[in-house]
Amino acid sequence: MAPDRLDEDLANELLAKGLTVATAESCTAGLVAARLADRPGSSAYLVGGFVTYSNAAKISQLGVDADVLAEHGAVSEPVALAMARGARHRLETSFGISTTGVAGPGGGTPEKPVGLVHVAVSGPGGDAHLRLMLPGDRRRVRSDTVTELLRLLLDQARALP
Amino acid sequence: MAPDRLDEDLANELLAKGLTVATAESCTAGLVAARLADRPGSSAYLVGGFVTYSNAAKISQLGVDADVLAEHGAVSEPVALAMARGARHRLETSFGISTTGVAGPGGGTPEKPVGLVHVAVSGPGGDAHLRLMLPGDRRRVRSDTVTELLRLLLDQARALP
Repeated sequence: MAPDRLDEDLANELLAKGLTVATAESCTAGLVAARLADRPGSSAYLVGGFVTYSNAAKISQLGVDADVLAEHGAVSEPVALAMARGARHRLETSFGISTTGVAGPGGGTPEKPVGLVHVAVSGPGGDAHLRLMLPGDRRRVRSDTVTELLRLLLDQARALP
Repeated sequence: MAPDRLDEDLANELLAKGLTVATAESCTAGLVAARLADRPGSSAYLVGGFVTYSNAAKISQLGVDADVLAEHGAVSEPVALAMARGARHRLETSFGISTTGVAGPGGGTPEKPVGLVHVAVSGPGGDAHLRLMLPGDRRRVRSDTVTELLRLLLDQARALP
């Protein structure tokens, strides 16, 4: 699905069902919220969001458990899910959606290489998560992360009655 | 100053002085944080941020006074300053920086037309604020808002010892 079509389908789905969204972003650092806000009228579904670049911000802004961060690391499924749940809870929205990953060029390790990204959606139908290995440079990794997360959100929104 | 040069000068100034930044964004909805995070190594100065698209989010995420919002409206100098102070306080950074404006195409009024934007910086040297009337469409208003705010931040950072 082309990004423009994805964004349009997502906006229509959220509006038709009266669903709202809160973002929790690490590696994308605001790009998810900015893309949701690209469309005029987006304030009907985008309530707000958090850019939690540091671990301290993930803990204080989203209530992510420091022990979970220490055990699994910031780029992990448990942290992605905790970020999505935290954003949803704090802004009382239908959905919380999150990104955490290694955008590069530095910061990669053998276990968590550049391009490894976790995205998560927490909503009325439960939680969903994707582990991604994205090719390309920092800009492309961040941009493709946004698209993959919005696809997952659209799937979750469509599954609701 | 060209945007790329501005971004480079700002990163160097923040790094040289060990300064940190928290964002509070309404009309730009994440673009300020995302642009700060464009540079590898930006986690040294970007701690995190808030996208407060709704008034409820401005109150709950940043501690903006509901009475101030009711009296002056979301697009105002007092709210821009309160957002910047709130982000700085909540993330315990050197600077809090904020945007609130009418990006259009809808939402404009005779008193607050499309293109009216307030940006603010709260830091160790005090607070600074700019009222802007920006031309162009939604995308250009949001993009130029980011640049104007980062220029103001660079000025404030340079003024520090």
